[in-house]
Amino acid sequence: MSTQIDSFGDFPAYTKLAERSRRVAFFSSVGSLLHWDQQTFQPPAAGAYRASQIAALETMSHELWTAGEVGDWLNACEQQDTTAASTQHKGNLREWRKSYDRATKLPTSLVEELARCSALAHDAWLEARKQSAFPIFAPHLKRLVELSREQARCWGGDDLYDALLESYEPGAKRADLQRLFDGIAPHASALAMAGESLPEPTPLPAGPYPIEAQQAFNREVAEAIGFDFSKGRIDTAAHPFCTTLGPADIRLTTRYDHADFTSSLLGILHEAGHGLYEQGLPDDYFGTPAGSAVSLGIHESQSRLWENQVGRSREFWEFWFPKALRHFPCLKESAADAVYRHVNRVRRSLIRVEADAVTYDLHIILRFRLESALMDGDLSVDDLPGAWNSEFEKLFGLPIPDDAHGCLQDIHWSGASFGYFPTYTLGNLNAAQLFQAAGAAIPKLGEKIAAGQYRDLGEWLRKNIHSHGSTLLPGELISAATGKPTQPDAHLAYLQRIISDQTG
Amino acid sequence: MSTQIDSFGDFPAYTKLAERSRRVAFFSSVGSLLHWDQQTFQPPAAGAYRASQIAALETMSHELWTAGEVGDWLNACEQQDTTAASTQHKGNLREWRKSYDRATKLPTSLVEELARCSALAHDAWLEARKQSAFPIFAPHLKRLVELSREQARCWGGDDLYDALLESYEPGAKRADLQRLFDGIAPHASALAMAGESLPEPTPLPAGPYPIEAQQAFNREVAEAIGFDFSKGRIDTAAHPFCTTLGPADIRLTTRYDHADFTSSLLGILHEAGHGLYEQGLPDDYFGTPAGSAVSLGIHESQSRLWENQVGRSREFWEFWFPKALRHFPCLKESAADAVYRHVNRVRRSLIRVEADAVTYDLHIILRFRLESALMDGDLSVDDLPGAWNSEFEKLFGLPIPDDAHGCLQDIHWSGASFGYFPTYTLGNLNAAQLFQAAGAAIPKLGEKIAAGQYRDLGEWLRKNIHSHGSTLLPGELISAATGKPTQPDAHLAYLQRIISDQTG
Repeated sequence: MSTQIDSFGDFPAYTKLAERSRRVAFFSSVGSLLHWDQQTFQPPAAGAYRASQIAALETMSHELWTAGEVGDWLNACEQQDTTAASTQHKGNLREWRKSYDRATKLPTSLVEELARCSALAHDAWLEARKQSAFPIFAPHLKRLVELSREQARCWGGDDLYDALLESYEPGAKRADLQRLFDGIAPHASALAMAGESLPEPTPLPAGPYPIEAQQAFNREVAEAIGFDFSKGRIDTAAHPFCTTLGPADIRLTTRYDHADFTSSLLGILHEAGHGLYEQGLPDDYFGTPAGSAVSLGIHESQSRLWENQVGRSREFWEFWFPKALRHFPCLKESAADAVYRHVNRVRRSLIRVEADAVTYDLHIILRFRLESALMDGDLSVDDLPGAWNSEFEKLFGLPIPDDAHGCLQDIHWSGASFGYFPTYTLGNLNAAQLFQAAGAAIPKLGEKIAAGQYRDLGEWLRKNIHSHGSTLLPGELISAATGKPTQPDAHLAYLQRIISDQTG
Repeated sequence: MSTQIDSFGDFPAYTKLAERSRRVAFFSSVGSLLHWDQQTFQPPAAGAYRASQIAALETMSHELWTAGEVGDWLNACEQQDTTAASTQHKGNLREWRKSYDRATKLPTSLVEELARCSALAHDAWLEARKQSAFPIFAPHLKRLVELSREQARCWGGDDLYDALLESYEPGAKRADLQRLFDGIAPHASALAMAGESLPEPTPLPAGPYPIEAQQAFNREVAEAIGFDFSKGRIDTAAHPFCTTLGPADIRLTTRYDHADFTSSLLGILHEAGHGLYEQGLPDDYFGTPAGSAVSLGIHESQSRLWENQVGRSREFWEFWFPKALRHFPCLKESAADAVYRHVNRVRRSLIRVEADAVTYDLHIILRFRLESALMDGDLSVDDLPGAWNSEFEKLFGLPIPDDAHGCLQDIHWSGASFGYFPTYTLGNLNAAQLFQAAGAAIPKLGEKIAAGQYRDLGEWLRKNIHSHGSTLLPGELISAATGKPTQPDAHLAYLQRIISDQTG
């Protein structure tokens, strides 16, 4: 479990920290296998024992990392001169300190209460959504809002919401997000309307798209973009995800739509984007921050880049349509352009997870505004459905028929994951900005994509994003890779292109 | 993780032991998932990290169970009056004491050396078998023999081999096995010759037996004999096994032969026999001996009972042949009798894992005699190939062409598993004896099997074997279930029937 990392790494307290960090990662990776299996293969009756296994592993990880000696080792390292230490050592120390402080600042009673209430809230949310009855969920959500505010207060800082954001997007600030999101919202709303007035594209044939054929095509595409199947695999799960079970074991999951092969394929491009990030992290630092993904927003930039910037591009389908035809003979009367238009169809809709690239951010901005107000105490839980519906109408110009299609649709708040949603839009913005930068750095990137050649793009991402692990903060990483902090321009230009490419 | 078990279970030291035992079981069950995944789905490059995960979990289990407080708790319990304690409490205390003593009697250095040498020996064995070159394996085997003798000396007792046997078959004694095996050997040899002179049965059609159809048929049969798929599943693995990942999570694996559907089906009957045992153990005692299988020999009796006594019976095929025909239309010119004869074909062969029911025990008796002599120092490793070949010729009347088909064929000795082999034949003897007793207890068992009705048999096994966990020793369990200790009679009668049923 222990490995020393060059010069500063010989310092005993650092070695101890690295060893402990790897041990925690070891438990997490085992936990990830338990979770992966739970989502893919576990027999129906095995849930209760499995949940206790996962909880026990989480407790052990938590105890290992919050033990007093970890604080002592950190202090000892911080008393050293680290000027000559490597980027990896500095990054590790910075991240270890942060996660240790955040973990130890929370009283055990609060951690347990959050876990207990989240479990209850999850069940209540499921039932509330089923019945579209917000009052079933409301008392649970109130408690989670209280506890999350308490959590944020323990973590400290000037802004409660910022303290929560830090869990998902280190260094991100609400004020910056607000500026970014306010800059996007009106344009996205306008583009959504413009997209909707485009003529309805010719529908793709309804199938058959046999699952075996979809699996074979997905794998072909995932391999082509660089996903290494000697270090990973694809399985089926109701809720697609990517998980890391070890430095050479990155697993993707997807689900299949019998009537639309593009749904699973774009899902795989998305998950493989996450997977390429994980496969591109430096193995030598596995189990330490320098070998770990830095944030959800950066992770999502990788998945969105492959799913949207590449997978929804005209060039992509020029190359892949003939290959898709071989797997799905029903496409013989269709064409690359029809698939291109199909995957870029813009329609305002009520449900986030069904949203297209143009309207997606509006869903996020809505949630960001509301959870932000909940944390400030400017919005009460009881007023949430009303606030949701009126804000939704402002952003989308559509009425919400019931709470199941409104404020009850997402799982996140039932798990007290306040501050998570913005990372989706940060991912979109970063994806567009990174793809633009890659396009400037790689000669003829468009032609390469049209020729099914992704190596230069993959290498650029590995060099500029993956290889850094968590040594740079997300903001620093994007600035270093693209020459500027996260901005809406590239993303808005991308959304604009979706519309203009289909006009006339 | 902790549960109290009725009256005596309130005694604090007992509660602590139960909690620790469940905690160890928790780690083992997580380890079993890691191992299951390794054998079924793990990507090729993930092996090294996975091995380190498994090793770390084993170390943790070992440390948890050998900690000084476990000894203190045991002493405290043993000072109590346990007269009124339940069978489960008594059984747990007996088994905990035994496993604690056995674990703590071994010096850490010996445990580590055995692990290290086994790992090396495994690689050497693979290479030796590949090249059929015993000298590659010999030095490793010598070391493992030495270390195993040392291990047996640490465990103590009058007989080194008995001390090793105890790991796999508690309470079994070499002298008893020798008597049993010497009683079987001449009969089995004679029956093998008789079986071989039967006319060659009409071959079954060579297929097609598509894997999907085999999977569907296997599942239908496994469900029919009572395997609960809400608490288990079947996957594909190169080396079939059954593993327990939790009280409601028992997994079987099998492999498929494109040209013979009976191979996988009998494999599934075998593994489902193990699985029914695991599913039939009392859930309330999961993670303690009272909720655990008692020995390999008893486990094998359950797998062999379903595979051989049921799955190779005429009655079984009378019922299942028409159903097999639905899955495999190629069987339309065949008949139940042809399948019956096909799965009962007797042929002496060199390789144990390919042996039929009649010759199987001869392979075991050979290994028992040789490993017994190795442990006594009566046979040197260098003389092993010669001894194997001459003993084989005596038992089978066949020459061994090379060591790959002789003493290098099995993995067991490369893992220092001396004392494991006899449990296979104990399983066969117990399977026949249990099936005979079940037949005496259940009216018209044969007719029920011919009607595809297995409930009475399943319930009889659950009541007489599964529900006891490890509260009775294997010998006591068989005596209680069948009215007598393990004897060769029922098994020899079964082997005799295989021949006589096909004669004339």
